[in-house]
Amino acid sequence: MAAPDLEILHPKFIDHLLGHRSDSGIDGFLGLQVMELEAGRLVVEFEVLDDHLTFIGNMHGGCLAALCDHCLGLVLYPVMPPGSWAATTEFKVNYLRPVSGGVCRAVAEIQSMTRRSAVVTIRVENDGRLAALAQGTCTVKLAEEKDG
Amino acid sequence: MAAPDLEILHPKFIDHLLGHRSDSGIDGFLGLQVMELEAGRLVVEFEVLDDHLTFIGNMHGGCLAALCDHCLGLVLYPVMPPGSWAATTEFKVNYLRPVSGGVCRAVAEIQSMTRRSAVVTIRVENDGRLAALAQGTCTVKLAEEKDG
Amino acid sequence: MAAPDLEILHPKFIDHLLGHRSDSGIDGFLGLQVMELEAGRLVVEFEVLDDHLTFIGNMHGGCLAALCDHCLGLVLYPVMPPGSWAATTEFKVNYLRPVSGGVCRAVAEIQSMTRRSAVVTIRVENDGRLAALAQGTCTVKLAEEKDG
Amino acid sequence: MAAPDLEILHPKFIDHLLGHRSDSGIDGFLGLQVMELEAGRLVVEFEVLDDHLTFIGNMHGGCLAALCDHCLGLVLYPVMPPGSWAATTEFKVNYLRPVSGGVCRAVAEIQSMTRRSAVVTIRVENDGRLAALAQGTCTVKLAEEKDG
Repeated sequence: MAAPDLEILHPKFIDHLLGHRSDSGIDGFLGLQVMELEAGRLVVEFEVLDDHLTFIGNMHGGCLAALCDHCLGLVLYPVMPPGSWAATTEFKVNYLRPVSGGVCRAVAEIQSMTRRSAVVTIRVENDGRLAALAQGTCTVKLAEEKDG
Repeated sequence: MAAPDLEILHPKFIDHLLGHRSDSGIDGFLGLQVMELEAGRLVVEFEVLDDHLTFIGNMHGGCLAALCDHCLGLVLYPVMPPGSWAATTEFKVNYLRPVSGGVCRAVAEIQSMTRRSAVVTIRVENDGRLAALAQGTCTVKLAEEKDG
Repeated sequence: MAAPDLEILHPKFIDHLLGHRSDSGIDGFLGLQVMELEAGRLVVEFEVLDDHLTFIGNMHGGCLAALCDHCLGLVLYPVMPPGSWAATTEFKVNYLRPVSGGVCRAVAEIQSMTRRSAVVTIRVENDGRLAALAQGTCTVKLAEEKDG
Repeated sequence: MAAPDLEILHPKFIDHLLGHRSDSGIDGFLGLQVMELEAGRLVVEFEVLDDHLTFIGNMHGGCLAALCDHCLGLVLYPVMPPGSWAATTEFKVNYLRPVSGGVCRAVAEIQSMTRRSAVVTIRVENDGRLAALAQGTCTVKLAEEKDG
């Protein structure tokens, strides 16, 4: 469950993101699509494509790592004041089973949040089976703090 | 320093990889190039491109995470018996400063290795300044153990 | 939730541990007591004592880290064949708020388990508020594999 | 190597700690002794005692985890303004080989430090062989920010 006391501070962000499918950047390479987004909880999916696999035939772990990093920050935006931004400062991921096709679905939940940082957990399922678990920290910054 | 007692078991892999620049997969998206590869140590570089940045103007953390995951496995191949393969089972990364351009250079070192797994650390520099640190575990598998 | 398909293979271990309060070792230093133990799920508690605090007045993070390490292994015993043992191979912990007294309660859950290893998550609450989150890997070994 | 640009801001702390052997708290349970302390680098040792072992005969992983947590904070004190304090916010540890006796020696190095936080790595050797690797984050706080 996500932290219980989170409030939506940026509802337009949700309107903007819901259903959005990235078409550039590393999230575009993966084909990430935002399926659900509410206070403290985000669901993102992508379809495993041939270009995500290694020569072994399994998905490159870097795809799951990038997915987790992406969700770690994104889940914070609705509960941050507009104009803020989030940067992952650290995370850890365990890969639980090889993925070779189908859909990967990440559920990110804010576990704890202060004004300046949050700890987020992520569960990734591949066709209904747990494929990865991640846990990490995001720093919340205001626009003027960009390089702090 | 890398673990002191590692031996090259697969010299052809080094010949094949040295200087190689990925042109497909997530490593191709990043543009990873193998600069150095020896027993227990790997250096990989890529140039930060616009498509690696987020809307904030900094590189997406997922690019560094994918880089680390990639190096974690790759550094093992020269010291595994030919026909084996390596799969990251877990890793952790700390991002130390924002990256917005230039070259990222990852140095991966095997810290400890048994017949079945290895612990690897990675230092990523961006234009000479430390940008990320990672530490993780790879499992070594023989071809017939692919889905174990 | 814990992995759904775990079976009790060592019921005597549960009978033996339930209610047990450690009186030696680092678990004895902490005063860990097993409150619940079932297939894939363990609850351990201890009371925060003055000797657990640092000169700042907050609990030493090492106490929570040791608690997490302890639970990571212990939760496996009921679902391993008798005679096996579990050794933590790696874990990561995030501290979410300072602890200065009261009771710490850790809930450990096996998220994924093969014949040879398991990934476990741990939530630590202090007087009802989330104080730490951990995630790690345990290796399962048979008695004869002790130093493998 | 530690971050290159660190300056001693609290030399008395070094004078006070060098050679000090903890006799209370979890560091006292372990018997930690500060062997070296300079800008960005700390060496701590302890002797493995019977009370540090589990029923298997190997050292409890929690002892190494607590050692790492302890060093993560301690290494910061000489380079923080007097009156500040350091709190580990997260770390990750990999155990590389079982420890059953002898001396454990941890070398902690600050890899990166801002005014408000630092990333630290730790190598633990047991009788000259690498036994654990850790990496984590400490938050720097001034006395008045204790519960922030």
